[in-house]
Amino acid sequence: MNAIETIMAHRSIRKYKSDPISDNILDEILVAASRAGTTGNMQVYSIVVTRDQQVKDALLPLHFGQEMISKAPAVLTFCADFNRFNKWCDQRNAGPGYDNFLSFMTASIDALLASQNAVIAAEANGLGTCYLGTTTYTAGKIIEVLNLPKGVVPITTVVLGYPDENPGLTDRLPMRAIVHHEKYSDFSKEDIELLYAEKENMEVYKGFVKESEVENLAQVFTQKRYTKKDNVLFSKTLLDVLTQQGFMNNE
Amino acid sequence: MNAIETIMAHRSIRKYKSDPISDNILDEILVAASRAGTTGNMQVYSIVVTRDQQVKDALLPLHFGQEMISKAPAVLTFCADFNRFNKWCDQRNAGPGYDNFLSFMTASIDALLASQNAVIAAEANGLGTCYLGTTTYTAGKIIEVLNLPKGVVPITTVVLGYPDENPGLTDRLPMRAIVHHEKYSDFSKEDIELLYAEKENMEVYKGFVKESEVENLAQVFTQKRYTKKDNVLFSKTLLDVLTQQGFMNNE
Repeated sequence: MNAIETIMAHRSIRKYKSDPISDNILDEILVAASRAGTTGNMQVYSIVVTRDQQVKDALLPLHFGQEMISKAPAVLTFCADFNRFNKWCDQRNAGPGYDNFLSFMTASIDALLASQNAVIAAEANGLGTCYLGTTTYTAGKIIEVLNLPKGVVPITTVVLGYPDENPGLTDRLPMRAIVHHEKYSDFSKEDIELLYAEKENMEVYKGFVKESEVENLAQVFTQKRYTKKDNVLFSKTLLDVLTQQGFMNNE
Repeated sequence: MNAIETIMAHRSIRKYKSDPISDNILDEILVAASRAGTTGNMQVYSIVVTRDQQVKDALLPLHFGQEMISKAPAVLTFCADFNRFNKWCDQRNAGPGYDNFLSFMTASIDALLASQNAVIAAEANGLGTCYLGTTTYTAGKIIEVLNLPKGVVPITTVVLGYPDENPGLTDRLPMRAIVHHEKYSDFSKEDIELLYAEKENMEVYKGFVKESEVENLAQVFTQKRYTKKDNVLFSKTLLDVLTQQGFMNNE
């Protein structure tokens, strides 16, 4: 398979066999991650590879009990990381100025480009993967479990292992929902109706609406899955984590 | 080439031929971007494809005059984007709660995973690519040029075109600089010396130090390329942009 075929075949895998991942394959995935673009080649990110059952079990509640954390053979936590770079600057009498929000974003970008390379390299090796959005929700507690020092914030987590399920591709909106030519063309009320019509008519989503006992699919998101109350809570705790880890000295 | 080989061959390309990119290839790249993981399949990102010379020229100063913006046939601006999703929620009486920092991070993650898929798909098609870190520095002005509405913030930019140079692979630190097993093992003073020794001894970096008239490579970063003064300024303006675009209602 070429790279496009690998990319096009991506599905999130949530059930894994217990088969371990060989060190060779894991190393190939990590090296692939390291070849992603990085701002100024500073490599201001890190990857914590967790395979020990006890540590995975400690991470499990921080990812809201999603069983795959505990059952998949490897969990990779991708972190924005200026710790190593700052230490180097300090040892070179170079006064690092990376304790601010811009630097947090720079490091987050590094971490996320590396994570996507890892996902593609894993899938090219026949492994399944799943991103865990819970990482930014519980970053402060993940910092404690993984002993992340100041200058380090977990941004995303990828579970890796051999798939024990074979789901189909997930639906996507029509391409014109995400692509704009030359400049942004904002959507009319009718555009929105057309863009979401196919999704709203899919049986799987009609099932979600019924289970959730709400009026429509949008309400599944706003009232059940990603509520304002949770988002506000997690926004506050994440901003506190940025302050604690030394990324909010913006004066 | 398989996906691993494509990933391992990545270099940033800064000189481009004027040859256009066919619509077929561009579409394949954009569809590949859309197959990346996205939180809850919300697809809260967008891609602005700029090929018009006038618009590229308007972006040029916002990317600090890097000529490739103007010369490469296509510039892709990847944006964190809750605009479309919020409109849909509003039309469904669903009261979106995505005007906060957590939602900005969720949308940024979506945008960055899509961008890396686009880069790999482009390179698999023989194109060269380069990420532009300047996007977060001048986000407010990019918003003006590309008419980005509230709920949309540009996160990164990728230049695409046929390479007119053939640089070697960029160096990377030893893998133990970025990979930690089970938990984070922080670095001793000696670790840092060992991790950076090879880089500091490379002729290319010795040249940077000489040109910059500083004592060492770390000072090239802190005194010339990524200074505290710039980082603080860009942190403030980026946080202002988040407020302006409706992502800082965290109460």
